[in-house]
Order: sequence, then structure tokens, then C-alpha cells
Amino acid sequence: MRSKIRRLPQRGNYELQVIYQILDEGLVCHVGFAVEDQPFVIPTAYSRVGDRLYIHGSPASRMLKSLSNSIEVCITVTLLDGLVLARSAFHHSMNYRSVVIFGTAMIVDNIEQKLEALQAFTEHVIPGRWAEVRPPSPQELQGTLVLSLPLTEASAKVRTGPPLDDEADYSKEVWAGVLPLEVVAAAPIADPRLQQGITLPAYIQNYIPRHRSFNSSR
Amino acid sequence: MRSKIRRLPQRGNYELQVIYQILDEGLVCHVGFAVEDQPFVIPTAYSRVGDRLYIHGSPASRMLKSLSNSIEVCITVTLLDGLVLARSAFHHSMNYRSVVIFGTAMIVDNIEQKLEALQAFTEHVIPGRWAEVRPPSPQELQGTLVLSLPLTEASAKVRTGPPLDDEADYSKEVWAGVLPLEVVAAAPIADPRLQQGITLPAYIQNYIPRHRSFNSSR
Repeated sequence: MRSKIRRLPQRGNYELQVIYQILDEGLVCHVGFAVEDQPFVIPTAYSRVGDRLYIHGSPASRMLKSLSNSIEVCITVTLLDGLVLARSAFHHSMNYRSVVIFGTAMIVDNIEQKLEALQAFTEHVIPGRWAEVRPPSPQELQGTLVLSLPLTEASAKVRTGPPLDDEADYSKEVWAGVLPLEVVAAAPIADPRLQQGITLPAYIQNYIPRHRSFNSSR
Repeated sequence: MRSKIRRLPQRGNYELQVIYQILDEGLVCHVGFAVEDQPFVIPTAYSRVGDRLYIHGSPASRMLKSLSNSIEVCITVTLLDGLVLARSAFHHSMNYRSVVIFGTAMIVDNIEQKLEALQAFTEHVIPGRWAEVRPPSPQELQGTLVLSLPLTEASAKVRTGPPLDDEADYSKEVWAGVLPLEVVAAAPIADPRLQQGITLPAYIQNYIPRHRSFNSSR
């Protein structure tokens, strides 16, 4: 099965750009691994820096403990772009973009690379945030396990566009089309312990999740 | 690892309700399985009927072929509810709700149960849709592989609320709090081949994805 995934050098630059775009728009990935034939799928944050994907967490986390033993991993990022409403129940579908990555995660030991990864986690989710917050202390850096996965074995899958109905069904008197879904930010909720006089920064006030519907105009 | 997941009868009714609510709000699950130590994580639609989760697809799908060989599966549903902005980079987090289910998927052979599952797929995503569309033909029913997973070994994980900063950081002049994220429907896009005179049904016009932010009032 896995052999069907082509390696990046064999693909065009276009597919690589699609993979990067999907990874940059997503906020959560699902990490899959198996321990003695038992599969696990764990949601976690991630970031992409160049041709690597980083995930992180406490060294005590069971997932990261398993992954740092150099076992095979599959990481999937899925963006749901819309509901596809066909004239028949059978042809209902969803518009989505997903990336599936295979590989072996490596522990990031180098402190500079670790700091680069941590900065990327923050900036990936909220651009502009890193410069404002207290950077990680040496102890925090020590207490964070960062894993790196090369994006050499990755593939993208994309569905867009209207439903594909059976020819005979197109005459049916049923509304058909796409209902785009978008992720939007609601009003920020200040921490109850926020110091008085601190105003909301523009990068939060104007935050637009990168994962907007692929169907709508951007 | 898996043994730490308690079985449902040992848990209170509250946790079961949380699990059901998360599953009912989600639209996509991530199915994890391993073939010869190689893990796979595939996004797919699903529905819950009582204490079972259904997934479906073409019998030709590699994933469903693997799963119908009664191998162990892990299915995860994740709802991202908000970004948690702390005063330190280290304590940034996300508010989310997730369910992880372990088990062995079984093929649904019984035609009535299969039809029940297909109806649940449609109604789970777009309540009101099933009654309007052409129901599955015998050939379509035949051509759909439905798998069923009991919800006997499932657990929920939920993070809500403000950031948890180090005590010394609370005096910092940095905005902190939660930025809730919501999934919303944008304007429906009619199929280019839609028959003239077909109006948009109310259940699409007024569609509200069940996955709204946990932080906002509902």
C-alpha cells in the first residue's frame, strides 16, 4: 500500500505546493502509530518548516515516548471545505483537502533547531504572537520533546466542485450543490486574570484562520 | 497503553454523554490501522447510531479492505474549539474536544442495518436531507461497504478555559485569553446543472454546523 505513495522528487512542483499549503492552513494533525499491532491516532498541534514537519509535547507523553523509539508514523492533516449535496443519497460527498505523510520521526536535540520549531508552532497558529510573549526558558526547552518528520513521503488528496450524480438523476427536483464550510474566529475571551489596561493586539483582533473554504473566493 | 482506557460500564453516564455529543458534532473522523507495522491514518465520514459508529465506502477502498479483515482499529474525532494564548510561548495551547475509540470493525451484512447506517450518514451531516433525495438502489446498497464499530472502548478528552501561565508571568503586559474558533456555513453554491425553479430548502439555508465553538454560548 505504502509503495503507491510516490516520493517527492518524482512529482511536480505543483503537488509539493499543494501539500505545503494544506499543511500551512491546518491547525491540528492526527498522528498514527502502532504498538504491538495496536494502532493509535492522537490529535496534536504541528508546524512546517521547509521540508520538515514538527510535532512536540511533554517527554512524558505516551505518544511521544513511542514515536521517539524510531517507529513508523503516519501523520494526516485534513481540511473540510464543504458538504457536497447530490440528488441521490449515494452520491453525497464532502469537499476536502488532506495530506498523508509517512516516515520515521526523529528527536530534535539541537537547541537552536528546537527553538526554531517552537517559534514555528506559535507563529503557525497565530502569526505575530512570538514577538510578544515570554520566550521559552532553558528549563522549558529541556522539558519539551520536539520530533521532526521529513516531508519526503507525502501525498495530497483534494476533492472540489459540485456533486457527480447519475445521469438519470439530474432531472430530479432536488436542490443540489455545495455548502462551503469555513473556520472563523469568534470574539476573543480575555483571561479573567488579564492585567488592566492591556488592549487586544491587532493580530488577534483581525485574526483570520488560514483554513477558509477552498470553494469561496479568497 | 490501551489498557488504560476504561470500558464504558465503569464510567458514569456523564462521560458517555460527552462522547456521544462530540461524535455527533464532528463531521470527519480519522481512522487508524496498521498493516505489517505500517500505520495508516485516513480521514472519512462517519455516523453514530446508539452505541455503534459506522463508517462506509467502496469495497474497493484499500482502507475498508484492510479493516474488513477484522484488524484492530483506532478512530479519533477531534473538534478544535479555540486557540489558547498564554503570556509565555510555552503555555500556549488549544481548546479541543476529542474522542478516541478502539476496537475491531465488523462488516454490516444485514440490508436493513446497512440502510439504517446510510440514512444516518446523510442525516448526521445534513438533518432533513434523507427525505428529499433518491434513496440507495439495491445495486448501490450492494456496492457500499459499511463497517460497524462498537463504542465499548472509547474515551473523551476535553480542554476548556483560559491559559494556565506560570505565576510569575501573570504580571506581564501581554494580552492573554482564548480565541474561539467556529465552523460556519458560507453561501450555498448551486450545482451548475441544477434544474430551473428549484429553490434552496430551509434546512440548507439555515444550516448550522453542529460543531460550534464550545466557548461561545449555544
